[in-house]
Amino acid sequence: MNSEFDIIRHYFSRAPKHALLGVGDDAALVACSPGKDWAISTDTLVAGRHFFPDVAPDKLAYKALAVNLSDMAAMGAAPRWVTLSLTLTEALAQNDDWLKGFASGFFALADLYQVELIGGDTTGGPLNIGVQIIGEIPAGKALKRSGAVSGDDIWISGELGNAAMGLAYLQRRLVLTAEEASPCLRALHAPLPRVRLGQRLLMLAHSAIDISDGLVADLSHILARSDVAAVIDLEKIPCSSAMKSRLSLGHTDRQLVIDCLLAGGDDYELCMTAPESKREAIVRLAHELDIPLSRIGKIMTGSGLTILTTTGNPVIVERKGHDHFLAR
Amino acid sequence: MNSEFDIIRHYFSRAPKHALLGVGDDAALVACSPGKDWAISTDTLVAGRHFFPDVAPDKLAYKALAVNLSDMAAMGAAPRWVTLSLTLTEALAQNDDWLKGFASGFFALADLYQVELIGGDTTGGPLNIGVQIIGEIPAGKALKRSGAVSGDDIWISGELGNAAMGLAYLQRRLVLTAEEASPCLRALHAPLPRVRLGQRLLMLAHSAIDISDGLVADLSHILARSDVAAVIDLEKIPCSSAMKSRLSLGHTDRQLVIDCLLAGGDDYELCMTAPESKREAIVRLAHELDIPLSRIGKIMTGSGLTILTTTGNPVIVERKGHDHFLAR
Repeated sequence: MNSEFDIIRHYFSRAPKHALLGVGDDAALVACSPGKDWAISTDTLVAGRHFFPDVAPDKLAYKALAVNLSDMAAMGAAPRWVTLSLTLTEALAQNDDWLKGFASGFFALADLYQVELIGGDTTGGPLNIGVQIIGEIPAGKALKRSGAVSGDDIWISGELGNAAMGLAYLQRRLVLTAEEASPCLRALHAPLPRVRLGQRLLMLAHSAIDISDGLVADLSHILARSDVAAVIDLEKIPCSSAMKSRLSLGHTDRQLVIDCLLAGGDDYELCMTAPESKREAIVRLAHELDIPLSRIGKIMTGSGLTILTTTGNPVIVERKGHDHFLAR
Repeated sequence: MNSEFDIIRHYFSRAPKHALLGVGDDAALVACSPGKDWAISTDTLVAGRHFFPDVAPDKLAYKALAVNLSDMAAMGAAPRWVTLSLTLTEALAQNDDWLKGFASGFFALADLYQVELIGGDTTGGPLNIGVQIIGEIPAGKALKRSGAVSGDDIWISGELGNAAMGLAYLQRRLVLTAEEASPCLRALHAPLPRVRLGQRLLMLAHSAIDISDGLVADLSHILARSDVAAVIDLEKIPCSSAMKSRLSLGHTDRQLVIDCLLAGGDDYELCMTAPESKREAIVRLAHELDIPLSRIGKIMTGSGLTILTTTGNPVIVERKGHDHFLAR
């Protein structure tokens, strides 16, 4: 059974000859000019898989661009240029309100990060939204998945699990109050890519990834690429009070909430590793940018990811993370 | 009724602030380093619209990359990097033969032009193949659509209409002998992007476009962007002997063949304009590269495209060119 990662690895990964970094990180890296590298990435959203077919077009456009900006954030790149490949049904192609809404959502976020839409392709077919993005990084400084070293602290920005909680709520697998649901739906529909944080981490972190497929899956990419192990504390993973209250032993929703926290995709927060010597600087950065940064564990020698709990109960992750070709 | 070009123009075109050239040419242009610009483009193929769903995967991959290489050719860029956004059905994602075939077709063409696959995205959904490409051009030298000036000769590489004839043959709208059909099907399934020619034209041509939507539609883009008119001779448009024999007055297939010649898409030949002073150099280049280059008309002041015939009969183009949202 081919997973998404199997397909990429088996059929499309070849060692780069001219690129600085090829297939397998948040973005590829190519040398642009002395002192400047370019990070290049693409992400596609498919109707019925990444979004509900009836989602508002401005939200859809926002998210399509946000997930690509998040890849730039995870490399520490300043996003510069985007292209848009838009496959539209006949009905949408003739729907002025939809197109206006889509364009306004796209440009609102593009303007916020000063990234310029420079081209693309519009064609007919089942709705499919591909965004390609190029960002700029000081030469040799990119935050790769392969940079983690034993002794590094593991840090997480913001809160995890909100987007997955929002999805569970919409799918009626979870009951939330309106107050609890609101930040979850915002995380699901309008994640805030951590672009400025990524750039500021260039001088502080050893490695980074954005959490699109869930903490366990994404941190495991860093461990595999860096050839290291990690231990994290479940209780230290930053999450909302709505999640915390449901994490207590015996709570009906405990397993669902653990899954959201550890394997929920779509948060687009950053997971990074940094040496202990940078702890103070990272805490200062968190204050300066007003972004919570939480230290959740350590990188060790060896392999594998261990999740500790203060109660001593082992943590079972029932969903390992998003994969577009494995049954959920 | 929104056409593909309406959608791009009305909703997604904004004057570039930082890019050298934004939406609306074969590729966008951005300054990379002193002396070097980058051309950036993307093209998407959708099952049932750009290809038959049962086409061989190696041919499909070849074509998806070829049409993007052709955009680089039309700018005079040396292709360097590609990313691939592959939306696959569950069945294809588990079909090892299909994936192997697709990868082999893709890499065969990539190797031929020394372009490197550096990243992409694999996801599930109705088959959709997006390729994004980046090429390199000496700063300020790109062949834009806006460069044509009155007095320029209009040149065409290779032969036009073969791909459209191949499609008409497969759709049983046209009867061809096996010998006649063979080059048509090759043009349809395995067009040869004119990458080397494009780069050599940088010092010779004023403007260029690749013929993906048909000669009338694509030459009209040059005329509109350059604010000029053109007169071309129907009889000078290069085509196969199979087409020539069907162009005679009174032939049953005459109108269909004229449509293929003038409005048939998918040929991926180059249409370029160059000053008279470069005629000899262009003829020498044609010999050196062993690519037929035919002079078919002139750029004039004014607007519009006039097509002359020696018989005096006006040429009526029944299909103006490919548009993904207009009825054909």
